[in-house]
Parts: sequence; C-alpha cells; structure tokens
Amino acid sequence: MTDKRLSPPRLPAEGEATRRGFLKGGLIGSAALAGGGLLSSAARAAEPDPAIMEKKDWNQFLGVGVDAAPYGQPSPYEAHVVRRDVEWLTASRESSVNFTPLHELDGFVTPNGLCFERHHGGVAEVDPAEHRLMINGLVDKPLVFTMDDIKRFPRQNHFYFLECAANSGMEWRGAQLNGCQYTHGMVHCVQYTGVPLKLILEEAGLKTNAKWLMAEGADSAGMNRSIPLEKGLEDCLVAFKMNGEALRPEQGYPLRLVVPGWEGNMWVKWLRRIEVGDMPWHAREETSKYTDLMEDGRARRFTWIMDAKSVVTNPSPQAPLLHKGHNILSGLAWSGRGRIKRVDVTLDGGKNWVEADLQGHVLSRCLTRFYLPFQWTGDPLLIQSRAIDETGYVQPTKDELRAVRGENSIYHNNGIQTWHVRDNGEVENVEIS
Amino acid sequence: MTDKRLSPPRLPAEGEATRRGFLKGGLIGSAALAGGGLLSSAARAAEPDPAIMEKKDWNQFLGVGVDAAPYGQPSPYEAHVVRRDVEWLTASRESSVNFTPLHELDGFVTPNGLCFERHHGGVAEVDPAEHRLMINGLVDKPLVFTMDDIKRFPRQNHFYFLECAANSGMEWRGAQLNGCQYTHGMVHCVQYTGVPLKLILEEAGLKTNAKWLMAEGADSAGMNRSIPLEKGLEDCLVAFKMNGEALRPEQGYPLRLVVPGWEGNMWVKWLRRIEVGDMPWHAREETSKYTDLMEDGRARRFTWIMDAKSVVTNPSPQAPLLHKGHNILSGLAWSGRGRIKRVDVTLDGGKNWVEADLQGHVLSRCLTRFYLPFQWTGDPLLIQSRAIDETGYVQPTKDELRAVRGENSIYHNNGIQTWHVRDNGEVENVEIS
Repeated sequence: MTDKRLSPPRLPAEGEATRRGFLKGGLIGSAALAGGGLLSSAARAAEPDPAIMEKKDWNQFLGVGVDAAPYGQPSPYEAHVVRRDVEWLTASRESSVNFTPLHELDGFVTPNGLCFERHHGGVAEVDPAEHRLMINGLVDKPLVFTMDDIKRFPRQNHFYFLECAANSGMEWRGAQLNGCQYTHGMVHCVQYTGVPLKLILEEAGLKTNAKWLMAEGADSAGMNRSIPLEKGLEDCLVAFKMNGEALRPEQGYPLRLVVPGWEGNMWVKWLRRIEVGDMPWHAREETSKYTDLMEDGRARRFTWIMDAKSVVTNPSPQAPLLHKGHNILSGLAWSGRGRIKRVDVTLDGGKNWVEADLQGHVLSRCLTRFYLPFQWTGDPLLIQSRAIDETGYVQPTKDELRAVRGENSIYHNNGIQTWHVRDNGEVENVEIS
Repeated sequence: MTDKRLSPPRLPAEGEATRRGFLKGGLIGSAALAGGGLLSSAARAAEPDPAIMEKKDWNQFLGVGVDAAPYGQPSPYEAHVVRRDVEWLTASRESSVNFTPLHELDGFVTPNGLCFERHHGGVAEVDPAEHRLMINGLVDKPLVFTMDDIKRFPRQNHFYFLECAANSGMEWRGAQLNGCQYTHGMVHCVQYTGVPLKLILEEAGLKTNAKWLMAEGADSAGMNRSIPLEKGLEDCLVAFKMNGEALRPEQGYPLRLVVPGWEGNMWVKWLRRIEVGDMPWHAREETSKYTDLMEDGRARRFTWIMDAKSVVTNPSPQAPLLHKGHNILSGLAWSGRGRIKRVDVTLDGGKNWVEADLQGHVLSRCLTRFYLPFQWTGDPLLIQSRAIDETGYVQPTKDELRAVRGENSIYHNNGIQTWHVRDNGEVENVEIS
C-alpha cells in the first residue's frame, strides 16, 4: 500500500477511494436480478416519426469501394479500441506489456490486433524463410526444421486462452488499477493451428532418460523455459497460425509454443529450439521470475497451471452503466484445468449470488462468455463474479489467496474482482472484506 | 465458353489448358494416400551443424517494443496475404467483390481483415451514435432503436459461415479462374455476437397476419431482401460483433443481419430497418438477381439455403506442391443445413476416394477444416473433395448440377472442384467428366 512503485495510472472515470477495505460496511442498496423482462421494462426505444419514412435518405450513408483496404481495418469510430500499456510497470518499452481491452469485446475470440502482448526483449522481426527450429539434447538424432518442413506434419486446431502468470499481479496488496483492461487484460483467446510437439519429438527420437524440455525463443532475450516432457507429449503445439492467419509478430511469428492451460510465459515465442534433458534448467524466468515469494521467505515455483478465474467486463471502470432499468451484465471465465462449469454473480457484495448464463460454446481451457440480465434502479452496486471449473475448483476471494500466500506475490492472482457501481453509473475497482 | 465477359484474369502459375473436358482420359499417375508415415519418409529436416550451437546469436533477431502498434498488424512478410478482386467481374469499385485468400488460411476462423466483402453501393461509413434500427409494418408498436438500446437485449455468440450465393458462379460453364481465392473465396467464418431477431420483433409485437420480413440496409443502395418470418424467429441475429470486436465497416458496421446457413446477400449490412409484412417484397435482389435462369427460360428463386460444398485449399493454384514425399492436403467444407458429416478426397480424379480427417470442432453451419496426409511421387494428380452433411446430402459434380439446372446459372454452384497438379508441382483449375 505504501510501495511507491505501485502507484497506478489514473483514468478519468476513477473516484477517490479505491482502496482495500473501502465499503466494508453495507452501503449497497437494492438491485433486482432479472431473468425475464426485456427492453420494454425500460421503455428505451422510441416510436418512429411517420415523416421519417418519406425521406428517401433516412439513415442512409454513402461509402467507398472494395479497393480501399485489401487487408481490412476497424471503423474510425472504433479508434479507442486498442491495446494499452501501463508506463510505470516495466523499465523499458522492449520489456513491457500491452493489455487487451476486454471491456470492448464480446464472445470469446480475441481479434488478432487486440491480443495482449508481453516481451522480455522486444518483438523479434523474423524472416520465416530464414527461421529454423532445432531439436537437440537427449534425442536419437538432432534435427533442424524449416517452416516448410513443419507444415508437412499433421496439424490440429484448438481454441485456447493464453494468460500471463502476472495477470492481476498488481492487485495483490489492494485495488490498484481502474479498468478490467489493466486488472485482467493479460489474457487472450484465439484458434491456434499447429503441429503436436509429440510428433516433432518422435521424429528426432527421445532417449530413455528424457524427462524435461527447454523451449527457447529467437528474440534478443533468448527467452527460455523448462517444461516437463509429459506436458510436451500430452497437448503442446508448435503453432504457426492464430485465428486462421499467420501468427502476429508480437505473438511469435512465425512459430510459437502453445502450452494449453499453463502460464503464458511458457508459450515461448519465435521458437527456435527445443532441447531435451533429464532435469529442469532453472532458467531466469523460472527462478528469479515466475515464482511466488511466500511470507516465510520461501518461493513457490513450477506453478504452471492457471487456476479458474473470472471477471465482469461490463459494467467495469472503462464501461460505466448508462441506463437505469434493463441491462446485460457480461464477463469472461476460464480455467487451465478444463471447462468452466458455472459462474455465479453477485450485485450486492456477496449477500446474494445468481448463476450466470454461459453463452456459446464452453470449451476446455478456452475463455467462456457469461451474461446476466439485471434491472438497475440507480442504487450503488458491488459486483463480483466467481468461476467454478469442471474439477470442482472454486475461484477464491483475494483474502483467501492472501491467507495462504501472503502479500509478496505477483503471479497467479485469480482472486474474485469487485467493481463498485456508483449511483451515477461510474464504476471503480475496490476491495471488500 | 465464348462469352467474352467471362474472360478470366490470369495468374502467373497458370498453364495453357484449363478448360472443361481437359484430361478426360486417364493421364494421371500414381499417388499414395498415407495415413501414417510422417516427415521421416521424406527426410527433409537437416541435422544441425554442431558449430551452430556455439554461436550466441544463432537464429536470433532484434526487435521493437510494445508501443509500435496498439492495434496490431500482420508481419511485413505476410504482405501478400490480402483480399483480392477480379477487375472485370463488376461494373464499378462500389459494386464489387473482394475475395478471401483461402489458400493462406488454416483452422476455420477467418481473421476480420481477410473476410470477403461484396457491396451493391460501396461501404457505408456509419456513425454508430447516429445509427438507428426501425421495426415497422405489421407490428403492434413501431419502434426505433439506438445501438445502446440493442446492446441491452440478451445476446448470443455463434460461429457461422457466410457464403455469397455467387461463390463459384463464374465456373458454371467450365473452369475459369485459377486459384481457390477466386473460385471459392466468397466465404468467411467468424464468431458473431448479436441479439436474436425474435426478441426485437417481440418487443414491437407481431400482428397475426405477419408472415414476411424485409431487411433494409443504410448503404446508398438501400439493399433489401425478403425473409420468411419463420426464419427470422428461428435463428436470425442482429449482430454487432465479429470475432469479439465491432463489425468491420465492409461487414455492415455497426449492425448487420445474420441469417445462418442462407445466402450472404440476405445478411443485410448497415441494417437500418426491418419491415413486417404478409407477402414477399420481390425486391431487385430477389428477382433480377439472386435467381437462377433455367434452360426452359423459367427462374428458380427463393433458393436461400447454401447446400453442402467443399474445396481443397492446399494444394491449389496459388499454393503449389513444393516437396515430393510426405505432404498434408488441407481444405474446407460447409453446409447451410447443419454439420458436415464426412469429406471424401480423391487424388486420381475419382477412381479412389479416401475419408479426410475433420480436425477441430465440427459445428453447424460453420466452416469445417479437413486434412489428408499423402505421399507425392511427382506424378500428376487430379484432386477433388466431396462433402456430405448430417442430412445425408452429398455434394454433386458440376455435371450433375448442369444436368438439372442447365448452363445459364450464376448462383448456388456447389459442384465438386478439380485441381490438376502437374509433375512440377504447379496446380491449375480444370474440369473432368
């Protein structure tokens, strides 16, 4: 709380008191959860002026032809829908993070242009004709593959979420950042196309003492991580497409490792080498980083799986409530252990919980979209969501997390998020306990 | 064949004889279909030079930071992966079509920047704050909705393909265009988010004699189509997002109608009005256009459903075979009647058929990706694919289509496509019968 480095950036909509413990009492008024009752209850839509139908050009717009953009771009009216960074968070632009604007999205696919990015040595600019993937170490025959070689292996297509282990990491000591883009935007979800790593390892032939893999990137950081061989053989992909097209440069073009359900840092980008070994490498990113310092001075490490988590994206600080009456609450839930089974939502800080509607496909280790219709009377709300996955794991409160892991952590904060909706519809990041 | 208007554009890879009837004999040599046997059979991958491991900067690239592109773009090495048009096809740029580069994609999601577009009066440039949707005609209470109003209705998320009725239309009289981007690229597939049209119609209240809907766009063409009320109530969406973000301008930003499984022209873009009536409107686009002229001078109309279809995207004229030995054949199948049940592939012009692998999710009225591993000996191939949907419908040959509908048609050509692979790996569009 007194750590100056954690000073958050301020957004226009933010109020004064966003700290932990705020609203610890029962300040919250009534809010009705509505299963039925559509727009009519709010009488928003207007009846048309009969004269409007006489006007041939009513609501009519001129436009441009098809040659305007062979690779299409969003409408100029959507110019505010972009990834954003937090300047104080990292020492340089090359080693920084750009967050997905979750509050502007719907469904569960993240469009490629808005997928969050995090680099340890900038975005490598790789010529795919020059790029190679080496398999070496405890193999019968070390091999070097071109991109063409890799594309001649059988492929698979999967929707997977990718979440940085540090997502929500700035919130360990209390509510800091005002907007789900910043508190939860280190996650994206696309359809990946790639070759099962198993097939590539089998091509090289694994020696009997093979137990670990080291994945290494072609960026200037040479980012590397140890991965148990078992995971590599189970479901990892060497991916070259996202949402149908080639990987974007900031997502590892032309080749990245996909490690379903596990922390994003292991999904090594610009993948140039996989070494097979018999023990972990203890690389920088799995010792000094991506471990969690506990109260007693010891560190958790090899905490790879991203546990069940959820966030209400609308309303949220960047997406205030605009209308009284009928509204749709919307959010995302995910689990590195499988499918989301249920999401509960409360509007009164946990006194009453209602099951949200999981809408669209509910896939394993993929973002899941949930909705909840509700009536807003204009009274303040304390909104939370709680995800439960198919293993029965229940998303914990932040206090429950702190009770186990203390306050020194950065990574793996999957605690329940609270948004405070004021009577004017503005929303802020708070904590209640 | 003698119609000058059908003169096709020529691509560099194209050969001389691409017309119907070509290769009518048995010119095709051997090609082995391979279920197992991976890359090793082709011995493509190289063994690493031990010295390479001593070089710290082996395969290493410097890069830029995260602020380079808040809305991300593809790699400069992918600059050739764009939509393309066919200049002679339409009279103006405002009324033209831009084709999806299917041969460059994988999985079943089309990235938003590459979704094919077709306009009848250019791309309307709509300010979402000014845009309105009117519901009028045989309703209890005509209504006008703002975009905000619409977003307060319950939403759904669905992956659907959108195919223009004219897709492959230039091929009715024989093989014309060289590349699946041109022969089959009037199709795309994204995750749509929208409000069931049923909810919006119910808000206005349907009169008892309501039987038809007329959907009308806010473009300068005022594009409109009649749709049976039954379909509108069953599964149509008033959509505002594609692949998570706002619709792209050329896809109807900020609002389009989604008519699952039915021809793309009915998916009215820049949707400004839905009128409820008791009979069809017989608008321009359902009388002089989007009907099929039969041999006897009568026209088929109201042929809304897009029947089962498939195409091999790799290899294809824009994506030649580069290597002998092991290769992965890849393609797309879809049906407006439901799920794809099976795709058969032949490499020898129909003598032998093998079932392809449907990979990834197989969803109703969504593109389905299929693969087939095969060994290429260097002999010529005649590649075809044949889709079968869950209703048992089997994709017909082009000759079977012509036997029923003659040669005057443009729309609804779902005939089996043939690619001729030459001994040098080049591929051309041909017909065999």
